[in-house]
Amino acid sequence: MAMNRQFVLASRPVGMPKESDFRLIETPIPSLKDGELLVRAMYLSVDPYMRGRISGMKSYAAPLEIGGVMVGGGVARVAESKNPGFAAGDIVDIYMGWQEYAVSDGRGLRKLDPAVAPVSTALGVLGITGLTAYFGLLDVCDPKPGETVVVSGAAGAVGSVVGQIAKIKGCRTVGIAGGDDKIDYILRECGYDAAFNYKTTADYSAKLNELCPKGINVYFDNVGGPLTDAVFGLLTVGARISICGQISQYNNTKAEVGPRLLGQLIIARAKVQGFLVTDYAARFGPALAEMAGWVRSGKIKYREDIIEGFENLPKAFIGLFRGENIGKRLVKVE
Amino acid sequence: MAMNRQFVLASRPVGMPKESDFRLIETPIPSLKDGELLVRAMYLSVDPYMRGRISGMKSYAAPLEIGGVMVGGGVARVAESKNPGFAAGDIVDIYMGWQEYAVSDGRGLRKLDPAVAPVSTALGVLGITGLTAYFGLLDVCDPKPGETVVVSGAAGAVGSVVGQIAKIKGCRTVGIAGGDDKIDYILRECGYDAAFNYKTTADYSAKLNELCPKGINVYFDNVGGPLTDAVFGLLTVGARISICGQISQYNNTKAEVGPRLLGQLIIARAKVQGFLVTDYAARFGPALAEMAGWVRSGKIKYREDIIEGFENLPKAFIGLFRGENIGKRLVKVE
Repeated sequence: MAMNRQFVLASRPVGMPKESDFRLIETPIPSLKDGELLVRAMYLSVDPYMRGRISGMKSYAAPLEIGGVMVGGGVARVAESKNPGFAAGDIVDIYMGWQEYAVSDGRGLRKLDPAVAPVSTALGVLGITGLTAYFGLLDVCDPKPGETVVVSGAAGAVGSVVGQIAKIKGCRTVGIAGGDDKIDYILRECGYDAAFNYKTTADYSAKLNELCPKGINVYFDNVGGPLTDAVFGLLTVGARISICGQISQYNNTKAEVGPRLLGQLIIARAKVQGFLVTDYAARFGPALAEMAGWVRSGKIKYREDIIEGFENLPKAFIGLFRGENIGKRLVKVE
Repeated sequence: MAMNRQFVLASRPVGMPKESDFRLIETPIPSLKDGELLVRAMYLSVDPYMRGRISGMKSYAAPLEIGGVMVGGGVARVAESKNPGFAAGDIVDIYMGWQEYAVSDGRGLRKLDPAVAPVSTALGVLGITGLTAYFGLLDVCDPKPGETVVVSGAAGAVGSVVGQIAKIKGCRTVGIAGGDDKIDYILRECGYDAAFNYKTTADYSAKLNELCPKGINVYFDNVGGPLTDAVFGLLTVGARISICGQISQYNNTKAEVGPRLLGQLIIARAKVQGFLVTDYAARFGPALAEMAGWVRSGKIKYREDIIEGFENLPKAFIGLFRGENIGKRLVKVE
């Protein structure tokens, strides 16, 4: 009997996840019923949001149980199909989790056309991360030409795209990232107008003040913490802040404290809004079409950070919290 | 020559304001030029926002200089007029500051009709504080029937009105205030569905959880600090938070720290927005007409906390930060 390799949650991480929090198991590949199809993973995604899903805390989705297959998106090839909508060889975008094979009834799967773009982009710029940048910037913040847009985590899968969409909309973009290689990347490839490496900057407020002489109209936050504190002090009247992620806080074992900043929102009459890209699912189609156009025309560039080998999923995931990746980190399975 | 009594800023308060931060001076009443009028104060307002104006910190308005006449709203009677729009005896709403007399060219003055409501209400429920409740709740939060609306500072000039507007809109209202007399007031007179005294409540989260079993859809925040921290943990999906004031923070000599909470906004896809009522000035007319209707029909009740005597302005103001007032605190001058 053919076997399936899967990573299951062995224990809930305390603080930074460890490889031993995940366990590799083998289970038989189920046989197909009518209407089902079997896919084999080509690429599997690792994303910061997954930290919340394994924490056991109340959140927007039920936490993964101990022993459950780790969740996540994938790009996979149909190996066998008893579903008339799919044929062996089709390539699909499927929320299959960290496993080599998965059985599906076809619902929620998106067929990918390798002629449009490399299929791996369905997990990045032309997938959930690109859509996160798109809706979190355009819908939550409605940036106007000439406005200053600041992005934290600007070299990551989402942040690198946010800056480029903001440029398409005529904004001035300022990126914050943790590494000179990342700063170089966002300035040269992503078209950021200015950027700084927070790891080598002592005074974030002074640096932001220097790079944003007219204040900050829009802030797209992937990181949180002291960087975000500094941004709050420089908001213009009517500023909009999109809270996409708070990666600096995800591995805290208790809530970090920081200065209370809500009073700044009164002074600036500013809005702070959290969002989840899945709330925009009804509009993914047209958004992906627009994004694909920008990618084809070269207005949006992207980088993938591809780790080889199914067995390296936990290591690839943990590295996200060490800031190892530039662009979208993926694991190539097949 | 007739003299005018004025309170000027003697020194910038450090922490809680002291009476000695203000100095009572006498200056000659200027004679009128054509087009001007002279008013004599009947009621002068004391409000928490004034703490920001005397702090010297960057904010939405230029800080009051040392030696300047203390700012604030007033209701005054026209003593003498060389302006065809006003006659002696008219009663007006005027941003005249803490002084007995003021000269005006008539711009920005609103004539008050004592037949509509007691003229003192122009500083409260039918003035800036009532409008603050109106726009901060209706415009920023858009409350829907059946939603749970939580208000901090619920017995104050603004909060006591917010709860009543929320009831008019069909919401369930939960008030937070600091004193059993205040809780009694908001439950019996303002129609709050539930309330608690934060000074005698050990665990705000547990109490809010008990009083808001379906979570918090709307939060109108006058106070900030640990109360607001507790609210953030109970937000429903799509919750809206209006930041009107942060009175718990105004007298801090350095930024208080608290748990970082922006991640909660992602889970709830919630919006937090600061606002200033003056941004809605173009819509004050219709809003006041609607408010006046609600007051006349008894749907909105109000209470005034009137301190007698011009010389008591500083004391009345400082008392706001001790939570002395129920409803709108005013100083009766004439």
